[in-house]
Amino acid sequence: MNTTARYFVLVLGVILSIHFVLSFTHQEYGRATSLSSIASHFSGNGDLQVVPDPYEGYVRPTTTPNATHFISDKRANATFVILARNTDIDGTVRSIREMEDRFNKYYKYPYVLLNEVPFTEDFKRRVSVLTDAHIDFGTISHDDWFQPAWIDEQKAKEGREKLVADKVIYGGSVSYRNMCRFNSGFFFKQPLMEKYRWYWRIEPDVHFHCDLNFDPFLYMEENNKVYGFTITMYEFEKTIPTLWASVKEFIKLHPEFVSPDNAMAFMSENGGDSYNLCHFWSNFEIADMNFWRGPAYTAFFDFLDQKGGFYYERWGDAPVHSIAAALFNRKDQIHFFDVVGYEHNPYVHCPRDDQQWKAGRCTCDQKRSFDYDGYSCMSKWDRLIGR
Amino acid sequence: MNTTARYFVLVLGVILSIHFVLSFTHQEYGRATSLSSIASHFSGNGDLQVVPDPYEGYVRPTTTPNATHFISDKRANATFVILARNTDIDGTVRSIREMEDRFNKYYKYPYVLLNEVPFTEDFKRRVSVLTDAHIDFGTISHDDWFQPAWIDEQKAKEGREKLVADKVIYGGSVSYRNMCRFNSGFFFKQPLMEKYRWYWRIEPDVHFHCDLNFDPFLYMEENNKVYGFTITMYEFEKTIPTLWASVKEFIKLHPEFVSPDNAMAFMSENGGDSYNLCHFWSNFEIADMNFWRGPAYTAFFDFLDQKGGFYYERWGDAPVHSIAAALFNRKDQIHFFDVVGYEHNPYVHCPRDDQQWKAGRCTCDQKRSFDYDGYSCMSKWDRLIGR
Repeated sequence: MNTTARYFVLVLGVILSIHFVLSFTHQEYGRATSLSSIASHFSGNGDLQVVPDPYEGYVRPTTTPNATHFISDKRANATFVILARNTDIDGTVRSIREMEDRFNKYYKYPYVLLNEVPFTEDFKRRVSVLTDAHIDFGTISHDDWFQPAWIDEQKAKEGREKLVADKVIYGGSVSYRNMCRFNSGFFFKQPLMEKYRWYWRIEPDVHFHCDLNFDPFLYMEENNKVYGFTITMYEFEKTIPTLWASVKEFIKLHPEFVSPDNAMAFMSENGGDSYNLCHFWSNFEIADMNFWRGPAYTAFFDFLDQKGGFYYERWGDAPVHSIAAALFNRKDQIHFFDVVGYEHNPYVHCPRDDQQWKAGRCTCDQKRSFDYDGYSCMSKWDRLIGR
Repeated sequence: MNTTARYFVLVLGVILSIHFVLSFTHQEYGRATSLSSIASHFSGNGDLQVVPDPYEGYVRPTTTPNATHFISDKRANATFVILARNTDIDGTVRSIREMEDRFNKYYKYPYVLLNEVPFTEDFKRRVSVLTDAHIDFGTISHDDWFQPAWIDEQKAKEGREKLVADKVIYGGSVSYRNMCRFNSGFFFKQPLMEKYRWYWRIEPDVHFHCDLNFDPFLYMEENNKVYGFTITMYEFEKTIPTLWASVKEFIKLHPEFVSPDNAMAFMSENGGDSYNLCHFWSNFEIADMNFWRGPAYTAFFDFLDQKGGFYYERWGDAPVHSIAAALFNRKDQIHFFDVVGYEHNPYVHCPRDDQQWKAGRCTCDQKRSFDYDGYSCMSKWDRLIGR
């Protein structure tokens, strides 16, 4: 052999030796350079775990050098938001633990915890130990939480007494009303929330039953979704006797906010004349705060707030959010997250699709899923989207 | 260039191109072949997470090619064992989910589930979806479960009626007695258990509060431990009026089984004359079945069984296991797993060591740990081991 040929053999030998040493000592290298891996790479999905549509393309790699510290490069500007009292510590810990286990340990989206009084050091210590994700603890200002001075307290008191007499849940509670109004019009305006666009609302003591193998925030953003839900049901009519009349009044004043191809047919059997009481259960929400902060919802909330129904009746944030989301967006901007196994006592949504139930290693019982319970509005949703 | 040199450049170019393409398209490849990775490979322990003594050396690598599919090379011959009825499905699912999340997804130790009747297909489906670990579902034979024919049922009935009159928990239950006798003398003889040496007993609806960053089976094996516990408490005296007399009788017959340096001082204030009712709460156990299968415990269980106290009184597997473990082993063969946050309603053990509580990202509240509750025997344990 001539000198060049010798160099050629030598260099090739060294390279091949390194390849073989690495193949045996580094599992990842062996896998990455194996023929089947290279073939599958070109065939498309490689080592990614495939979940059924519509979430393909949003999956996380299950094969990562350090799965517990993996943060996706592609992230949404998103946060979890939890409203909790200091006495809710155990339930808050449980909810965050499950969110971390099922989803967020791979994403490390931050948390914002809000309280009407400062969180105790003990609360902060027990929550902070659960995750490396950033956590902000905030105190809600007096004006964002308490009953406004312009509310006629005598009239409000009569309203509460009426609901107590009618045995309506939380009928006599002022703090429950504060919470409903806060969740309707103020959580997305909190200083700690301002920098985020997307949020996932979590309550203390809820359960997430399935591994979430994709990023729902990114999915929402890239598919122009505005509002995501898992459970839908009927509202107690006695809590909102004048709400729908107020909604109709607002629509007449501001027809420009009503979206073409909206979801009115989900909430009314007669083109909007009366409300069928269907709403999205807002203790679970994945949604776009740009919508709550935008002109339509801002005008809508201010209009409803001036009616005083949050205190004179007991308007919930669930129907208020739901009606706005359904009327001021196209129906395809509202997304049903079947894949998210979710439980808020006493109801659970469990993925109906067997493949999703298995891929998510769900702990929930499909047979007990609320979807087709008599009190669920899921059949109205199916009707709306033509399923 | 001559022909050979051209081939050299061509081949080298192709190899380098493949390398660069792989470096960018395969994260694992890029990392495996990077200089820093190769350096850390030779420097020893790389990215291992260090937990406090005494478990150093048993930690799992947190950096693995695929953490959710990592199985340690060094494994114990061990299994989880769960006794459950078909109606326990929700609690069983919850316990396994927590065990997987906190520990077993990294180890994939198998599960053996046992039932006095065959498990339903629904039960098996809901459990199997939770883990890739091997799961065996077994049915306990009639003779291993039910009250033996030689028990005097009239006497047994009088015993039950007495405990019902005394308002002792499960005082009137025959099936509870079947379970206590099964857990005392039969679970480790089940065909599905025979091939294993170590077990971790789990009950439906218990909670594991902390990440377990090491392998407790290996720790037990390599440190000559026999029995591991998390909670210790007093037994109800009315359930075991003649148990200690039987124990003393056995010891007189078989002094050869009593270990030097045993844990008698944990269970007696007077050198063994009377029992202080302290025992390990056996719904949590990590232990060596070689001990239960060995000559001392075999003779001990047979002796107690012939006394009939499992049915004439209501002897629990907890005092029976505890007394045997404490007398027939050296006290240093019994291990208190402070690091394991464990809850069986209504009691919780939470790691008292702050560093362990943080390293485990524990969801439990240290202030509510049972250890120094008035009903706990932890202070007796501390006295025994001279803490």
